[in-house]
Amino acid sequence: MDGSQQHGKPLVDNVLIVGVGLIGGSIAKAAMANGVCNRVIGIGRCNDRLGQAVDAGVIHEYSTNVKDVVARCSLIVICTPVDQIVEDVIRAAQHASVETVITDVGSVKEKICSELEGRLPESITFIGSHPLAGSEKSGFEAAEHDLFVGRTTVVTPLEESGSQESAIDLLTSFWEQLGSVVIQMNPADHDQALGFTSHLPHLVASALASSVSPDLLPLAATGFQDTTRIAAGDPTLWAGILESNREQVLQAIDEFQLHLQQFRQAINECDTEMLIRLLSEAKTIRDAFAQSSE
Amino acid sequence: MDGSQQHGKPLVDNVLIVGVGLIGGSIAKAAMANGVCNRVIGIGRCNDRLGQAVDAGVIHEYSTNVKDVVARCSLIVICTPVDQIVEDVIRAAQHASVETVITDVGSVKEKICSELEGRLPESITFIGSHPLAGSEKSGFEAAEHDLFVGRTTVVTPLEESGSQESAIDLLTSFWEQLGSVVIQMNPADHDQALGFTSHLPHLVASALASSVSPDLLPLAATGFQDTTRIAAGDPTLWAGILESNREQVLQAIDEFQLHLQQFRQAINECDTEMLIRLLSEAKTIRDAFAQSSE
Repeated sequence: MDGSQQHGKPLVDNVLIVGVGLIGGSIAKAAMANGVCNRVIGIGRCNDRLGQAVDAGVIHEYSTNVKDVVARCSLIVICTPVDQIVEDVIRAAQHASVETVITDVGSVKEKICSELEGRLPESITFIGSHPLAGSEKSGFEAAEHDLFVGRTTVVTPLEESGSQESAIDLLTSFWEQLGSVVIQMNPADHDQALGFTSHLPHLVASALASSVSPDLLPLAATGFQDTTRIAAGDPTLWAGILESNREQVLQAIDEFQLHLQQFRQAINECDTEMLIRLLSEAKTIRDAFAQSSE
Repeated sequence: MDGSQQHGKPLVDNVLIVGVGLIGGSIAKAAMANGVCNRVIGIGRCNDRLGQAVDAGVIHEYSTNVKDVVARCSLIVICTPVDQIVEDVIRAAQHASVETVITDVGSVKEKICSELEGRLPESITFIGSHPLAGSEKSGFEAAEHDLFVGRTTVVTPLEESGSQESAIDLLTSFWEQLGSVVIQMNPADHDQALGFTSHLPHLVASALASSVSPDLLPLAATGFQDTTRIAAGDPTLWAGILESNREQVLQAIDEFQLHLQQFRQAINECDTEMLIRLLSEAKTIRDAFAQSSE
């Protein structure tokens, strides 16, 4: 850990990471590396694993019981699977100090943000976050201090008023200090967009991997390798994400199927001109993405 | 170029590369780097481009007319787009010396191999090849001398008899000396397999890129990046490949759609158990691929 502080004073005193896996561990490492806080405290279920995370320099200390440590932390980041986030936010909020800001890193925001509305103490602010960074790997062993550098993080307030505004500022500074570019969106718009840009690619990669019989794998090369990489992701984690964004995901699948059907029709009808046009349209979008991001 | 010869004597005297693009250029560089031949001669349409390829050290010499140089070459590798290969093989064979071996690098084999059957002089042997290596880039500027290292090359003889056998041996040695692992298959089996492992991923990547509205691209991350990378490939080149393997590609699309439909149904019916099972099956195949190849 290269604890260089960007400013004389860290942004917050202690940061609490609930769920010290790939993302939680990477936030912890990035917060340490950038001097964003004094200490990073990890919450998890397993003493052994948390002890290993301390030994590996990922977190400073840990507990398996959030109420023992939460009062010392002014920023809480929930990094558990999407179907556990609401419960973990409520549990952390119960014992948190006044003016504590809680965020999460879930890939789906509408369900979480709306389920939490009105269920937290007045003095606690929850605003969702989603750093668009990850890996098909899991566990804090795969955590990287630079996972968020140059990556977009979406912050999703329900409304911009009073206490929300200072919390938005805090979260924006937090993610920016980890190297992220912060975008603000409402939760529903986020979910619709990510249904197309993240959840659909995951399903397509998985359906593609499933379509290839294992005995053909020796004949698969870099094209198959790249298109299916994310199909190696954690099935339970992804089932939770896909189900939490059910409506948008179904809509994205239907849109994709229409496009694939156009390709199929052009090939079936030997319509070379149409096939080249469809491939060119896809290339134009992919080239625009490459130009803006790679 | 580090012209180290693996053996005292090169495998062949001169190699003729028809079409000095990414693949042709990479074969030329790999042949030079591994001392597989004395000279590499390039054939193309444009004097300027071919002159640049000589200046860049990709080929030793060039011509725009195959009949001027073909008699000096005992191995000819046709690296033009799939819909030009048959014509280019026939043109090269007309002026080739006896016992010349011709191969190609097309991604589709059945159509090419069967169209050439019985159309070449007795003394010339054509056997198809397909190195499973490539890039979404094009042009000899993107050529790499190690493009084939560790990659599978499929060699697709129509039958194993007489002159075929020595040509198979020559081609096997050639690709192996470029660093490839050689598999022998009949052209039809090759096309069926590649319909699933290569052509389907290309279509799926393209349909996926087309499904994402350009204004959502700032919300696309590494998942989208990897699943759509090959959609940046050359549209005309890929239209040729997809149409040359029409039957197998249509079958692969249909198989993929069945799998995607299963995912859709599990999400639509909130069948978590089924969704996890489907994602797990996909992960098992992707993990098996990673273990065998990465």
